[in-house]
Amino acid sequence: MYRKEIKIVDCTVRDGGLMNDWRFPDEFVRGVYKACVEAGVDYMEVGYISDDRIIPRESNGPWRFCDEKDVRRIVGDNQTGTKLSAMVDIGRVDLKAIPEKSESVIDLIRVACYIHQVDKAIHLAEACMDKGYEVAVNLMAVSKVQERALDEGLRDIAASRVPTFYLVDSFGSLYGEQIQDLVRKYRSALPNKTIGIHTHNNMQLAFANTVTGIVEGCNMLDATLLGLGRGPGNCPLEILITYLKNPKYRLLPLLEAIQTHLLPLQEQINWGYHIPYLITGALNEHPKVAIEWMGTERKNDFVAFLKSMYDNNALLE
Amino acid sequence: MYRKEIKIVDCTVRDGGLMNDWRFPDEFVRGVYKACVEAGVDYMEVGYISDDRIIPRESNGPWRFCDEKDVRRIVGDNQTGTKLSAMVDIGRVDLKAIPEKSESVIDLIRVACYIHQVDKAIHLAEACMDKGYEVAVNLMAVSKVQERALDEGLRDIAASRVPTFYLVDSFGSLYGEQIQDLVRKYRSALPNKTIGIHTHNNMQLAFANTVTGIVEGCNMLDATLLGLGRGPGNCPLEILITYLKNPKYRLLPLLEAIQTHLLPLQEQINWGYHIPYLITGALNEHPKVAIEWMGTERKNDFVAFLKSMYDNNALLE
Repeated sequence: MYRKEIKIVDCTVRDGGLMNDWRFPDEFVRGVYKACVEAGVDYMEVGYISDDRIIPRESNGPWRFCDEKDVRRIVGDNQTGTKLSAMVDIGRVDLKAIPEKSESVIDLIRVACYIHQVDKAIHLAEACMDKGYEVAVNLMAVSKVQERALDEGLRDIAASRVPTFYLVDSFGSLYGEQIQDLVRKYRSALPNKTIGIHTHNNMQLAFANTVTGIVEGCNMLDATLLGLGRGPGNCPLEILITYLKNPKYRLLPLLEAIQTHLLPLQEQINWGYHIPYLITGALNEHPKVAIEWMGTERKNDFVAFLKSMYDNNALLE
Repeated sequence: MYRKEIKIVDCTVRDGGLMNDWRFPDEFVRGVYKACVEAGVDYMEVGYISDDRIIPRESNGPWRFCDEKDVRRIVGDNQTGTKLSAMVDIGRVDLKAIPEKSESVIDLIRVACYIHQVDKAIHLAEACMDKGYEVAVNLMAVSKVQERALDEGLRDIAASRVPTFYLVDSFGSLYGEQIQDLVRKYRSALPNKTIGIHTHNNMQLAFANTVTGIVEGCNMLDATLLGLGRGPGNCPLEILITYLKNPKYRLLPLLEAIQTHLLPLQEQINWGYHIPYLITGALNEHPKVAIEWMGTERKNDFVAFLKSMYDNNALLE
């Protein structure tokens, strides 16, 4: 699958940080960065930019904030072919605290929002463009959005200067046919913009849905090493690279980072396919209840977990 | 996805046995059987029927042979809605030793073959039909078969009495588009036969490819609890059930079997997605080299494993 417009965004640290409050040792972040550079990955997302009056410093590692000094400690001036990305959440960032691009090593700012925040996301993204950054808007949890609201959000994006808009399967609940329908809708509403895709692996569909996205024309692809990410994790970067067969990407540096940095992390963080994540995905529910369950002594009592979900949705039994 | 013709074949014991020489305690096999019955699974494949002059008894558990007394010890006369299946390999079974259906609790015999064995498979399958069994032919490793040979094999199957023919992705190397093409080819060549699908999870595509098979008209679906199977394993039965949303199937009994019987087995058998299996899948190679590698002290040296594969195929680097 060769298409020169395709760009990959590694989200290992940013999405993986949701599982350990972004408390990665520098050595880990440096290892992921080195792997991305050597593998030819287009962007590495190093974390979130957050307002520390809202998000407490003491309960989060540095990649929840992405202070310029922390990022530069890893990447220096980043004289490489891999650009750097940071994510911002509506309501958790102070626009005034984001420096001009000329003073930052970050290249891309991605604004994550829910459907009722699309106008705010556009406002924030355009302000970041005015500071000199590349931007994208990532509409989360689209599997919960009613069609009329989605169409209105897409019209707002279409009328904006935002160049890139993401299909995000936050709950890992979308099947290939739904991904196909949504990408077609997004492309039809936004014919001159880039469409990105970010998937979760609740039903072991993260990679398959990313491939469906590619076939349907998505050109920004999120992935993480060994699929590290919230709950069941994301599309594994190493599988995506073997699929793309694009001469600009290399697999070997990714494997080195996986065996050196990701495998040891598996002893501490229990991401990946587990039955509670399957259940929230299949029920189109936020994974947080499953993540909480996985942190208890009853984590392997799947029958009890499914029964605990009956109040929300008795679809499965 | 509701289609009344769809039947599920649980292969947990048969395919999983490839990882432990079919040395499952009776309690495990009974647990899987009970789960299949209570969940409404159409067939449970209990193992292989093998000729013990060719396959030694002492190095294999009972589910490599499926002696009538062993099967009946678990299922009695099987007065349930779940039928029983056994697989046979060409050259490893003595047709004369297979009893008449009237003397056996097995309902379905599936003949596994490579492309050069299709004629032998048809002969064996038709002989089993004459003994009163349901039969299927499973053509393995189709990802290595040249189109001309495949077309000839399909013509032979078309001319036979064999009612069911399987698409088998033995190496876990097929993407959705290839599954789609192959199912269409099989259906076109065999318009009056049932097409089945059996997938492997090297590239985390086992479930996604099974869904593609369903959409394209496959009506016999192989799956296993928690994906237990050779190397990276198979399509997870519990995910498949959440997708089908067919009122005849139930999830809860499967979850109970997973937490009671499959999780403890994870301490002994290391099936599931691992990088060496990704590499053999992406290179369209038999998983045996990866399984051997996973049994060594270097199992997590993925860089060395990839380099060891360069003699076979330098596609990835």
